[in-house]
Amino acid sequence: MKDTKKRAFEQLSLLRRGVAEIVPEDELLAKLEKSIKDKRPLRIKLGLDPTAPDIHLGHSVVLNKLRQFQDLGHEVHLIIGDFTGRIGDPSGKSETRKQLTEEEILANARTYGEQIFKILDRTKTRIHFNSQWLSPMKFADVINLAAKYTVARMMERDDFSKRFKEGIPISIHEFFYPLMQGYDSVVLKADVELGGTDQKFNLLVGRNLQKEYGQEPQVALTMPILEGTDGVQKMSKSLGNYIGVNEDAYEMYGKTMSIPDDLIIRYFELVTRVPLEEVREIEAGIKSGQLNPRDAKMRLAREIICLYHSPSEAERAEERFKLVFQQGDIPDDIAGFAPSEPVIWIPKLLVEAGLVKSTSEGKRMIKQGAVKVDGERVDDETANLICQDGQVIQVGKRKFARVRVK
Amino acid sequence: MKDTKKRAFEQLSLLRRGVAEIVPEDELLAKLEKSIKDKRPLRIKLGLDPTAPDIHLGHSVVLNKLRQFQDLGHEVHLIIGDFTGRIGDPSGKSETRKQLTEEEILANARTYGEQIFKILDRTKTRIHFNSQWLSPMKFADVINLAAKYTVARMMERDDFSKRFKEGIPISIHEFFYPLMQGYDSVVLKADVELGGTDQKFNLLVGRNLQKEYGQEPQVALTMPILEGTDGVQKMSKSLGNYIGVNEDAYEMYGKTMSIPDDLIIRYFELVTRVPLEEVREIEAGIKSGQLNPRDAKMRLAREIICLYHSPSEAERAEERFKLVFQQGDIPDDIAGFAPSEPVIWIPKLLVEAGLVKSTSEGKRMIKQGAVKVDGERVDDETANLICQDGQVIQVGKRKFARVRVK
Repeated sequence: MKDTKKRAFEQLSLLRRGVAEIVPEDELLAKLEKSIKDKRPLRIKLGLDPTAPDIHLGHSVVLNKLRQFQDLGHEVHLIIGDFTGRIGDPSGKSETRKQLTEEEILANARTYGEQIFKILDRTKTRIHFNSQWLSPMKFADVINLAAKYTVARMMERDDFSKRFKEGIPISIHEFFYPLMQGYDSVVLKADVELGGTDQKFNLLVGRNLQKEYGQEPQVALTMPILEGTDGVQKMSKSLGNYIGVNEDAYEMYGKTMSIPDDLIIRYFELVTRVPLEEVREIEAGIKSGQLNPRDAKMRLAREIICLYHSPSEAERAEERFKLVFQQGDIPDDIAGFAPSEPVIWIPKLLVEAGLVKSTSEGKRMIKQGAVKVDGERVDDETANLICQDGQVIQVGKRKFARVRVK
Repeated sequence: MKDTKKRAFEQLSLLRRGVAEIVPEDELLAKLEKSIKDKRPLRIKLGLDPTAPDIHLGHSVVLNKLRQFQDLGHEVHLIIGDFTGRIGDPSGKSETRKQLTEEEILANARTYGEQIFKILDRTKTRIHFNSQWLSPMKFADVINLAAKYTVARMMERDDFSKRFKEGIPISIHEFFYPLMQGYDSVVLKADVELGGTDQKFNLLVGRNLQKEYGQEPQVALTMPILEGTDGVQKMSKSLGNYIGVNEDAYEMYGKTMSIPDDLIIRYFELVTRVPLEEVREIEAGIKSGQLNPRDAKMRLAREIICLYHSPSEAERAEERFKLVFQQGDIPDDIAGFAPSEPVIWIPKLLVEAGLVKSTSEGKRMIKQGAVKVDGERVDDETANLICQDGQVIQVGKRKFARVRVK
């Protein structure tokens, strides 16, 4: 008995890593204890949006937590929200809720699968499509569901109350998105639901609905929203500040090296599996000045590549990076710019990058052998460049710019 | 063309009788004109609650207006709200929304039919059960419906905004009652929907939904809520202040005679078909003192009985009434009381009515021949009375009480 309690507490300590909030923590501890005692894995739920199947490190924060649950013996249930995907946004106002066909949904689910199992354990993962139980529901069932929640409680959601106060229309059907997500928890009998901090309200709807349906309520576990490589905004594909789990090793290395120093520890904690004590040591090292942030970042880049590729690829990426950047004394805080064309005449590119004042100056610099792309000298003043995200353009010894392509 | 306009305006003038509001009146005029031009009757809608099939004069206010539409050539569509009746109130909080079985709904519909065609023209009436189109709706259909209305607009309904402000819970499913009623209008392509003033919001939801579904919107026509025989509260069966259309002629006569004088004109306008000019004359007569309100009320009672029984029954009821009340000098503002038992020992009844202090005093009064029920002397001090609503109990010359049985 004592051992069970101790083991449950050990699990909880591990699971606490990086989380924003566990609501409520004592219930999670009790569930872990019961799970150990009854030898029954907990059912951990995550809802996936069927419209955006490209997974990046921002998504990996929650997925890593799921993986941690799996490593502790628990069972992951992924819910693909295809029901709302099939409907789309009936008001036609939302671009994020575009209507998807059956084929698009399945294709996205496959793409998810290919990427997600780089993080999750396939044998402890079950995938569900929520149209399975939502599509057959009739009007009378919907009324029964809606009767379980009050308007006031729904209006507690930040965006609803804000819009209501500001007179920005809320369509009644919008109340159903949290209700559907919550009902998924009822159908699944979820023990824990994960999400970003922006999902807290929806996770709690699931918790409350389960109570209404006479079930033991799920615990809501939220993870922080990861900043992108710019260090400011939420990591997202559309902002171009992301590191995708499908990107090649060198790309990942370069992008990781471009994050601001003050994000190093956060990234270690949220996107790697480096043990927490070691992360604390790295943190202390940087603080005391004993560890160069650049070296910490190189370790971070290797750790990330190990997760999505392999240790040998991590080595190779690092060698190439050193060759291109460090030996050429290229700084790592280079400003980015977006070229106007995907394939562009290099003197024009130099003007757009702000490295020269005119294309004729650009041509002159090329003739002088002063222009490099990713460390390689450009010799032909008539050449075009096929732009790739992250390329470093150099003029002379001190002028640099980084290509940014979405 | 001019004639069409004139005829439409004549219809509108007749239809204006007694109405609380026509939203908007110019659209009703345009619809009437088009109806005359195209020789197409308007579709006039009324929703009926399937839980309370006993029709009284309170309901007749709206039904009389429907009948007026029929007399002008239009078509009446009654919607029996059996869909919500079958669901009941899923929150279990509402007593008025009790769940009904298929049999109860059909039985209630039959009972409606028996009574309603005392007022409506059967050949110009169609009855619909809204479960026909609401039951087959799936979750996706419901979401499409809900997307057509905003939370803010729904909260404009007085009781919703009041409850929201006061922190009294509103379940989300409650938003669906107006939406369903409104959707009925869409399915029916209603031109006009009738209801009491308390239904105005719901009628306007129908109007707005029709616009959202690309239809010409219905006109909302509201009728005043009729006060009951007590002259204060809304006529309702549960308050016992009603005159039922199925009651016998004498009952109707007595109850009509018991209404306060200041309601006489309102009743003439709302529950009889006496032409408006004549009603205005009666009003002027009472005001000037040339017409005794009691005589006006006797005319009113006869008019009501003519509608639900026959002129000869009206005569008979009046004769009996005169015999019992006027010749016995019985006042018509007698206080009512509810006997504790349906069949009750008369001395006990006299105590409950407050006419004597004890059953022994009651027995003594009976022995003295001082006790009358509906003008007939009671001789047997051991007798029981089978209580009937409206019975007048008299002790001596000046003490009266009226039996009130729900």
